[in-house]
Amino acid sequence: MNSCKPNTEFAPILVADIGGTNARFALITAFKPELNQFVIEHNITFPSADFASLEAALTHYLSQVSHIQPTRACLAVAGPIKAGQVHLTNLGWHFSVEQVKSEFNLAQLEVINDFAAFAYAAPYLDLQQNITVKTGQADADATIAVMGPGTGFGAASLVRSNQGSAVLSCEAGHISLASVNELDSQLINELRKQLPHVSVETVFSGPGISHLYQAMAAVKGVEAKNLTAAQISELANSGECPVCDATLNQFCDWIGSVAGDLALTFGALGGVFIGGGILPRMQERLLASRFVERFTAKGIMSQYVSQIPVTLVIQGNIPLIGAAACLHVNEQA
Amino acid sequence: MNSCKPNTEFAPILVADIGGTNARFALITAFKPELNQFVIEHNITFPSADFASLEAALTHYLSQVSHIQPTRACLAVAGPIKAGQVHLTNLGWHFSVEQVKSEFNLAQLEVINDFAAFAYAAPYLDLQQNITVKTGQADADATIAVMGPGTGFGAASLVRSNQGSAVLSCEAGHISLASVNELDSQLINELRKQLPHVSVETVFSGPGISHLYQAMAAVKGVEAKNLTAAQISELANSGECPVCDATLNQFCDWIGSVAGDLALTFGALGGVFIGGGILPRMQERLLASRFVERFTAKGIMSQYVSQIPVTLVIQGNIPLIGAAACLHVNEQA
Repeated sequence: MNSCKPNTEFAPILVADIGGTNARFALITAFKPELNQFVIEHNITFPSADFASLEAALTHYLSQVSHIQPTRACLAVAGPIKAGQVHLTNLGWHFSVEQVKSEFNLAQLEVINDFAAFAYAAPYLDLQQNITVKTGQADADATIAVMGPGTGFGAASLVRSNQGSAVLSCEAGHISLASVNELDSQLINELRKQLPHVSVETVFSGPGISHLYQAMAAVKGVEAKNLTAAQISELANSGECPVCDATLNQFCDWIGSVAGDLALTFGALGGVFIGGGILPRMQERLLASRFVERFTAKGIMSQYVSQIPVTLVIQGNIPLIGAAACLHVNEQA
Repeated sequence: MNSCKPNTEFAPILVADIGGTNARFALITAFKPELNQFVIEHNITFPSADFASLEAALTHYLSQVSHIQPTRACLAVAGPIKAGQVHLTNLGWHFSVEQVKSEFNLAQLEVINDFAAFAYAAPYLDLQQNITVKTGQADADATIAVMGPGTGFGAASLVRSNQGSAVLSCEAGHISLASVNELDSQLINELRKQLPHVSVETVFSGPGISHLYQAMAAVKGVEAKNLTAAQISELANSGECPVCDATLNQFCDWIGSVAGDLALTFGALGGVFIGGGILPRMQERLLASRFVERFTAKGIMSQYVSQIPVTLVIQGNIPLIGAAACLHVNEQA
């Protein structure tokens, strides 16, 4: 950041964050180098289900900001993009990138998934608005990893090298979950009785908390109830259910091992950012957990992972920031 | 590839493959689009130990091709590159990228590690010169993963998306090794008795074969001998040692699970390429193993990994091809 740099202003760029529940639209009108921030205007959120299609939602938004006709856009969507086709199955929205681009007279339209947007956003996050899980020395030119448990387990990385940069989108939530100690192994053995493939997401997701609770009860020889993640959380925090409490502690500990492995696989010397809907709601437990110990317990690579800072992201508007960053608008003027 | 495209010729580019045993230098003089191949000339290999430094080896090579003064170079090195400094500890060679660039009057000098070079090379490999481990439909615009066991376990990926491309260098060999069945779990339990961190490299490397043999003997209740990887391989192939045979079969099976996980983490719909010094020497065993079954056993992502082709790379000159590709010389003219 150069504090002498003037703001970079540009023709308004349309950005959106399309999820199963909400569709949020905004216009990006400038980049402020001294703050390392995009200027986000006309930020409006609609219930996605109010519209039959992306096109309908977009038309409605543009009617609300009728004085502006963006020619560039980037949409972050909570679903897969394959060969220019986007399927948001929960909403029943399907669209072709080329058709939307043509219909709305856009010179450029990028569609990225929500974790790719998180990766693009990472260099623009305000560390003071977020939670330091582990201190470290981020290499400002190195790859950044983003990840987090939510409905599933998402991950992506912003690859940065001397030779170029790009965002890697992936399915890391579906790799086999590794154990690093006896309790982990026992839990995986229990989970394997129900599920042929015990993945990271099997445990590290909303439904995963229930799986982990069931396995923890079996390992402890206690009869499990049929509890949702929300119920487990409530019973753990009220002190009424020791197995629930052990479940959430194990969740916070073990995800440290998973995050350390992803940091190694992505070569993430630029830092690790954790998002998703679940961990921000268990901040205190996470900070009191063995996350950092587990993150750094990587044999001869312990020193490597020890230098990596880990941040829990609670700041809002990440997909909109990522969508703006994807268009590299800050590099242009 | 466009078969009508003429060859792209350019001023000779210096490429090198610097390993602990050999230092290989060559000049890249053209790219042939119809063959998707670089033209490699003056390819000369020296024993690395004959020289006290990279600079000495490079000076010697250039004296052998004295009519040519390259201004661009890319070196693939079997060691870490950190903040422009390269340390080849086995050789006692240390150099600064900027100093070498200046000393040899180079307008451009890139230094990349050997697995990054493998990733850059991947789109230029001749599939007919290599071995198909698993058929599939590579997405020509998607990320490619490269990996392989050798002295250690290396991995990298060539990230390709609509928004850009870059090579990801990483330490994926040091992630915790996951088990997916009872035998895997028993082996990890045995390994954990000796090693606090059981990583992918603990098993999937030259020394790893000995670790795996020791663990396999313990699981089978057989007394282990003190065998090297080469001895294990010989005894397995001669039929003299059933535990050695089981060790190598497990090696080939289990690495399928590891490769599948890396394919998921890298989002490698562009294909997986396996190199390194070990698997090319056990081709038959690998092809007869459960590699493919393990690679694709990824729960709801089984269909995703099923489409990914896996190639065992036996073609030579990979680091030189990768060094050339790193400079993107084929895109210029």
